[in-house]
Amino acid sequence: MSSFTVRTDLALEDRERIEGRGGEIHGVVLEEERREESGICITRVKIETKNGAKIMGKPLGTYITLEAPALTEQDEDYHREVSEELARQLRSVLPDMEKERAVLVVGLGNREVTADALGPQVADNLFVNRHVVMEFGAAAYNKEKMHRVSCIVPGVMARTGMESAEIVHGIVKETKPDLLIAVDALAARSTRRLNRTIQVSTSGIYPGSGVGNHRNALTKESLGVPVIAIGVPTVVDAATIVGDALERMEKDSGLQIIGAREHPQAMSELNNMYVTSKDIDEMIKRLSFTVSEGINIALNMEEIPQKAK
Amino acid sequence: MSSFTVRTDLALEDRERIEGRGGEIHGVVLEEERREESGICITRVKIETKNGAKIMGKPLGTYITLEAPALTEQDEDYHREVSEELARQLRSVLPDMEKERAVLVVGLGNREVTADALGPQVADNLFVNRHVVMEFGAAAYNKEKMHRVSCIVPGVMARTGMESAEIVHGIVKETKPDLLIAVDALAARSTRRLNRTIQVSTSGIYPGSGVGNHRNALTKESLGVPVIAIGVPTVVDAATIVGDALERMEKDSGLQIIGAREHPQAMSELNNMYVTSKDIDEMIKRLSFTVSEGINIALNMEEIPQKAK
Amino acid sequence: MSSFTVRTDLALEDRERIEGRGGEIHGVVLEEERREESGICITRVKIETKNGAKIMGKPLGTYITLEAPALTEQDEDYHREVSEELARQLRSVLPDMEKERAVLVVGLGNREVTADALGPQVADNLFVNRHVVMEFGAAAYNKEKMHRVSCIVPGVMARTGMESAEIVHGIVKETKPDLLIAVDALAARSTRRLNRTIQVSTSGIYPGSGVGNHRNALTKESLGVPVIAIGVPTVVDAATIVGDALERMEKDSGLQIIGAREHPQAMSELNNMYVTSKDIDEMIKRLSFTVSEGINIALNMEEIPQKAK
Amino acid sequence: MSSFTVRTDLALEDRERIEGRGGEIHGVVLEEERREESGICITRVKIETKNGAKIMGKPLGTYITLEAPALTEQDEDYHREVSEELARQLRSVLPDMEKERAVLVVGLGNREVTADALGPQVADNLFVNRHVVMEFGAAAYNKEKMHRVSCIVPGVMARTGMESAEIVHGIVKETKPDLLIAVDALAARSTRRLNRTIQVSTSGIYPGSGVGNHRNALTKESLGVPVIAIGVPTVVDAATIVGDALERMEKDSGLQIIGAREHPQAMSELNNMYVTSKDIDEMIKRLSFTVSEGINIALNMEEIPQKAK
Repeated sequence: MSSFTVRTDLALEDRERIEGRGGEIHGVVLEEERREESGICITRVKIETKNGAKIMGKPLGTYITLEAPALTEQDEDYHREVSEELARQLRSVLPDMEKERAVLVVGLGNREVTADALGPQVADNLFVNRHVVMEFGAAAYNKEKMHRVSCIVPGVMARTGMESAEIVHGIVKETKPDLLIAVDALAARSTRRLNRTIQVSTSGIYPGSGVGNHRNALTKESLGVPVIAIGVPTVVDAATIVGDALERMEKDSGLQIIGAREHPQAMSELNNMYVTSKDIDEMIKRLSFTVSEGINIALNMEEIPQKAK
Repeated sequence: MSSFTVRTDLALEDRERIEGRGGEIHGVVLEEERREESGICITRVKIETKNGAKIMGKPLGTYITLEAPALTEQDEDYHREVSEELARQLRSVLPDMEKERAVLVVGLGNREVTADALGPQVADNLFVNRHVVMEFGAAAYNKEKMHRVSCIVPGVMARTGMESAEIVHGIVKETKPDLLIAVDALAARSTRRLNRTIQVSTSGIYPGSGVGNHRNALTKESLGVPVIAIGVPTVVDAATIVGDALERMEKDSGLQIIGAREHPQAMSELNNMYVTSKDIDEMIKRLSFTVSEGINIALNMEEIPQKAK
Repeated sequence: MSSFTVRTDLALEDRERIEGRGGEIHGVVLEEERREESGICITRVKIETKNGAKIMGKPLGTYITLEAPALTEQDEDYHREVSEELARQLRSVLPDMEKERAVLVVGLGNREVTADALGPQVADNLFVNRHVVMEFGAAAYNKEKMHRVSCIVPGVMARTGMESAEIVHGIVKETKPDLLIAVDALAARSTRRLNRTIQVSTSGIYPGSGVGNHRNALTKESLGVPVIAIGVPTVVDAATIVGDALERMEKDSGLQIIGAREHPQAMSELNNMYVTSKDIDEMIKRLSFTVSEGINIALNMEEIPQKAK
Repeated sequence: MSSFTVRTDLALEDRERIEGRGGEIHGVVLEEERREESGICITRVKIETKNGAKIMGKPLGTYITLEAPALTEQDEDYHREVSEELARQLRSVLPDMEKERAVLVVGLGNREVTADALGPQVADNLFVNRHVVMEFGAAAYNKEKMHRVSCIVPGVMARTGMESAEIVHGIVKETKPDLLIAVDALAARSTRRLNRTIQVSTSGIYPGSGVGNHRNALTKESLGVPVIAIGVPTVVDAATIVGDALERMEKDSGLQIIGAREHPQAMSELNNMYVTSKDIDEMIKRLSFTVSEGINIALNMEEIPQKAK
């Protein structure tokens, strides 16, 4: 939820917005796939050129979206399927994982704010073994080879006085992982996507960010190692939700309501406000388990089962 | 936050809404007062007749609102002043407190959802002494007389399988307190009121309620003892915020947008969604301390200082 | 951990202590069984007469102990086996479970003290459905019949001002369950039993108890419904551990050290102290999951699998 | 509580042990002082030579102990006095604090284990301002000059896969504080000292340490900046408590019990076990507030009041 001020953290929604205005975008490739059994829909948006990045308002990279409507329900088998699918998609973007790698997982966000606690709660469920493998080798787990997984929850600036990115940069310099996986709650544009969508991206992450705040970047450029971001939209920006409702009104009524989205009275009080669902605690509890299992499966150096048991 | 579906839990906002339509309401008395030093504004809405109750959409009773704009800031002295003012207002509605009374404080809401954790967090800071006074008397605290304070956090139905009211009814029957103080997070209509308003009311409380769900009532009628409710608005219903923005648009544009608030597309996705502020964790932490201190002062059988030190 | 002052909460350890002094006890029946695959050892101590109760220092009833040494290890399949075995043993003492029953699970102990948080953490993982089944019937879960499960964490007297038993009595009167399952952390005599033993008993439970404090009893006599207690020893009383070490010294040295266990200097500072393991947080997290799964399986009205998958 | 295996983390107790054997230690200077009003006893042990360090079993440095018996009681004014005394002692060892300095506070220990949660809970109450002062200057707080305070809770290796010291080293390299304050729960030898003693030392800290584990050191040598450690003993090693009881028995009985402390049966089960008090949750809650207030006062660049209000 580091990007409340951004309209959407989902490349998929940027793509839809632009498509709505008519068609193809040069430099942006879209692929879609649907898993028959589970109904999970997988979309792959590749932003391949600077022009594409500019239009999309997102950095170059691959953005994979898993849409799994039943994620909001309490169904262990379904969540297992989503975890396995997430693991598959993660492996498709994690480099050189046939070798033993050191992976640092970063749980971004604020543990004290339910809708923003995804990252910290994923960290709680993660299988962490770096300290054991470094001391006793993979043999400690009766394995021949294992990735070394470590994990940090940097906390929020109001409590630490430091940017999350400062903390992570320091730890990366000290412990030298081969790659980073950063988990964070996201803002979507549409309430329909909340808590049922997982985005995996290769373009890094900008915790607590505004535009141009480079001190905050967790990217390959700033860290020297690949950064894979996993996010789940759990909130909608309050100004966005009102603005979108107004636009729909204009369209449906055929009237040009002057100002609409810019209306100062309608918007001024919505700064720093977000919209979330009433059962967000149950959602975060379940989603964080599903995401952490996905990471655990992706990092265990075994084959992913073809389908859930 | 037991009443997300209600447009506002603040009698003050009901009063404003109606006033907006023009004037006086029979059976509803309004008094206002402003504390010069602290800037705290105190409003007392008394709903005295059934007609007044019908128009206001709230039960008979007194509704005291403390509006303290600086409550959102981190200023210990100011919060102390608000606690003392809250204590004064509480004493004005607590009956027969010159005698030693047994008081049960109920912390309603969901500890796992930040915006709904006010009640549980107030309970954490409360001075509880019933067990000590019952065993050793007030002498245990070097006092001549003391109220006996107990406290319960009933939790939410999704975790307990029981209505909060069932749990409280059972405990009241077993421990026979002389009166109840119930603390809960509320829904306001306007974001301007969030986290800076405290309402004290004498009409009981309906946790997790909808209209007519009498099994849920925590009222003098259902419990046999007076129930004082303390609430702080921490959320706005998402449908309310969009609806209000649309109405303002209509008014300002002079256009009658057909359907507006009833627009199905604009509203259907907002069910079970609420709006809250990004720093809600800091807000709740501070507010819960201020409210618990207010209760502690009100129940300590000593004089309340004339002004904060 | 409601019984720190008691030397041991395990009937099995009482039995051993007495046996050590030589043999059979009239009125106390002992049965042992060992599961070959899992190595779980099940002991059933039945205290059948008043004389047996006096010698054992425990009320009449059946005390089933599951000893599962690998419980302290992180092995999901093994924990699943223990959950299923616990479910079997629970069903052997739960009355009339072929009918749909209302079951109240009580999570005793103090969430804020790790070694005492078993009860509250079991409550967190429990499948609770009373509110759903009461409103929509078993059909809501695509079942023909279901028990109705509710759950309460009464908290500790220092925070509530009330005995846990008062809270539970009130809730039982109000919601009228057919039976109670109470979960609590226990004190063992030997550190060898910590975190690897589960006791199921039919004689009720005395939270926060000392002898003769009948206000505190959660028993069939006081509540009117059967009470099944589930406990896991997580601590040893500090005075017990020192006393036992001294006794062993005496025995091994052949010297009669005057006073030994009664030595005032050796013992006076150990009041209100307990011994627990350094990794108690991981232990409680895993054990609470295993116990809650055991309860969930026991209460789901389906057959328990013959062995773990 | 990083040093369970060490007999005591208190230099004061080392001093007593040696004194018991007769007298002065070359290279170790002892000063005592008692505050009349508060009864706080302040002891300053200076280990000035290598020989002194060897005998004491502790590195060179100054070890200040505040013994405040009433710390275990709930008395806000007394705790305020202790906070102010702690602030005075901190200032006596913090270098160059008349200039604006960047201070990193490290909350060591395990938030999930109550007796080990002192460091994390101190962090929760700390006044953190680095991010604000770096962006807006001291003027943001209406001050002319301010230290910049940041704070990290590194967590435990079982959850992060990293040594606390690795995390802290990385953050120090990245954010370049002028000095470190590390807070941790300690092990005492005597239960009498638990929860009523605060040690401030200048010799650094060895989280999760054993002897010779230099990767773990948080010292001036390893970090390049001064490290002030603040600790409160909250546990006693279980083997220590039994061993001490046995020794006392020997002394009092006049018998030489062969083996005593080395008795394998008496000791083998006590590994990884510790002794703590039953009300440790209340203790930690209060102590962490008192320590964090002490740090806040020490770092606020204003004069410390001569005595508590």
